[in-house]
Amino acid sequence: MVNEPIYDEPVYLDNAATSWLKPESVYVAVTQALREQCGNPGRSGHRFSVSAGRILDNARLLCAQLFNAEKPEQIIFTANATIAANMVLKGILNIGDHVITGSLEHNAVIRPLHRLEQTGISVSKISVDLHQGIQLERLKQTVTAKTKLLICNHISNVFGTVNDIKSIGEFCRERGILFAVDAAQSAGCRKIDVQAMFIDCLIFSGHKSLFGPQGTGGLYLRPGLRLATILEGGTGNYSELLEQPEQLPYRLESGTPNTPGVAGLAAGVQFILETGIETITKKETQLINRLLTGLATISGIRIIAPKPEFERGSVVSVQLEKFSPEQAASILDSSFGIAVRSGLHCAAEAHRFMNTLENGGTLRISPNYFNENQHIDRCLDALRKLS
Amino acid sequence: MVNEPIYDEPVYLDNAATSWLKPESVYVAVTQALREQCGNPGRSGHRFSVSAGRILDNARLLCAQLFNAEKPEQIIFTANATIAANMVLKGILNIGDHVITGSLEHNAVIRPLHRLEQTGISVSKISVDLHQGIQLERLKQTVTAKTKLLICNHISNVFGTVNDIKSIGEFCRERGILFAVDAAQSAGCRKIDVQAMFIDCLIFSGHKSLFGPQGTGGLYLRPGLRLATILEGGTGNYSELLEQPEQLPYRLESGTPNTPGVAGLAAGVQFILETGIETITKKETQLINRLLTGLATISGIRIIAPKPEFERGSVVSVQLEKFSPEQAASILDSSFGIAVRSGLHCAAEAHRFMNTLENGGTLRISPNYFNENQHIDRCLDALRKLS
Repeated sequence: MVNEPIYDEPVYLDNAATSWLKPESVYVAVTQALREQCGNPGRSGHRFSVSAGRILDNARLLCAQLFNAEKPEQIIFTANATIAANMVLKGILNIGDHVITGSLEHNAVIRPLHRLEQTGISVSKISVDLHQGIQLERLKQTVTAKTKLLICNHISNVFGTVNDIKSIGEFCRERGILFAVDAAQSAGCRKIDVQAMFIDCLIFSGHKSLFGPQGTGGLYLRPGLRLATILEGGTGNYSELLEQPEQLPYRLESGTPNTPGVAGLAAGVQFILETGIETITKKETQLINRLLTGLATISGIRIIAPKPEFERGSVVSVQLEKFSPEQAASILDSSFGIAVRSGLHCAAEAHRFMNTLENGGTLRISPNYFNENQHIDRCLDALRKLS
Repeated sequence: MVNEPIYDEPVYLDNAATSWLKPESVYVAVTQALREQCGNPGRSGHRFSVSAGRILDNARLLCAQLFNAEKPEQIIFTANATIAANMVLKGILNIGDHVITGSLEHNAVIRPLHRLEQTGISVSKISVDLHQGIQLERLKQTVTAKTKLLICNHISNVFGTVNDIKSIGEFCRERGILFAVDAAQSAGCRKIDVQAMFIDCLIFSGHKSLFGPQGTGGLYLRPGLRLATILEGGTGNYSELLEQPEQLPYRLESGTPNTPGVAGLAAGVQFILETGIETITKKETQLINRLLTGLATISGIRIIAPKPEFERGSVVSVQLEKFSPEQAASILDSSFGIAVRSGLHCAAEAHRFMNTLENGGTLRISPNYFNENQHIDRCLDALRKLS
């Protein structure tokens, strides 16, 4: 029969955009919060409001535990990682400051930096090694007396390149440079210890490897670090002040938070803590290795990823000889039921740097903990047919 | 038996903080989106992403219909009304500009304005009549050659005072002043027609009378009005640009949106469109009238609300002779199972203006469409016992 799909179940391999399969507890938590616990947290004293407040308190505790934050109030919830990145960059940098970033950054960092550049902040983008990430030697050459901040991703969302956060953090701490990490692609699937890694600001997405719903994300801030605010409003306390209150997390959480979303995020983080981050990393690494090994046997595919001997994130970018990334993704979806992403992945800078911009970007395959070997194999089989 | 509650079911009368009872379709839509439709909208071309994109498109259409916006892309989704208010104020005002606001505004407007005041923008707060809202005569006296924007609420979240948006809007349009309306307390329960009311920016909350989940809100922008951005990042398109793209809604929606939340918001708006805004207004007005009539028969209660002959929102603020607002709210919750809010309601300016700041604010009772006469009566019975 014409147009009958040749597969039973679709395979989702676009977890770097948003995780599709999440722990069942996440769905349950969101629904329960929405139906039973959604007073306005911190805004009233009655049972519904108190119950909602507990959701936020609990989520803060769990995130603090996952990232080894000193205190739960150092965790700020935002609607996504992009808002957190804007808060960090605009809350720290002033006219005359110098900031360093990498060449594989996401538009969530690049675009606010571009905006700041126009207001008198100087920005240096250092080239990043595809295999080893930011190299300290290069970093040292870029630092000036005015360098106030280094911001880089933990893992590239396009190529899976991993930055050695601990070494970079140690370097920054020694030099008195603030260190902000975009952990959108690592929070929940790679170990992050903000204290051991000398991280001053950790920007995280809630709906990727933390398994929360879309509409969640956040920020860890080292105790004592004060951000100027870019968003002010009602905080449910200190209401008599015209100024935004100083106390965290309230200072940086204006307006009604996404209580049901944060309930789901907490369930996701709880799942990660119970499963163990090492178990998750191990499973993802095994899937990525299977994918890379398989891809290497297919002719007509260019793999743009760190060499096997280096640490990698759970994303692999490829280019096909016969099809553009967009064509390939479209065929994989329509004919094989495989969901992967094509294009620039909101990170044109990374493509400019790797010379993949002109070719329409890359085809990106990103499994997560809930994928299985058969998903990788089905993707490999399909790619073989397109090559 | 000691501590046994003397009521069967709790009564929720804090809908001005967040609506508790929502249409069943809202819960269903959030859960369904979360489980079945949550690819990353606009980020990939596969079925999961397309399905998520449709959720946003549909919600935009419905909101545009509800507010009579010219085009769906004039509707921008944000995480809450506070972010929308910040986007409007900071996106419009520049050094040297003059802005006018009312004396009954929420901290979502007052605090960003206070921040802007420190950067060289001049702010005038005009006194608002408790019964009739902003008076045009007063407004005329406050306008200067530098007045760029007037921002005021549609309905006061503390006292229920209604501003005559159409008359104010007409005045602003004639004078070439931009007009922004904080509709957090009116969107979904009072008629709003952005074109007929000459509204340039409409700021709305999703989780109050629009019945969406917390974590939703937004903004309507008149076509042709361009805001400077306060948040930049990935928009899923035009990714090669270092600048934030010009096209709406993308320009003002950086980062992954709250797809399941917006699905719930769409279901809420759909319910409102099907029920009819007049039906909702009528029901709420009847409940508020019942409440006010009952309150008038209780001695020892001061009612701070517009006189019966004037239009009112669905909030009533009172003060009790025998108990502070906080004490009263606590007793109502613990002994009578009635959830109302005490304090400043994130609007200290309104209390300063009405001389209710020193007394610990007010006790605020706010029914919505899903409340019934018996809820009002139970609240009145309880207040009678406390008076």
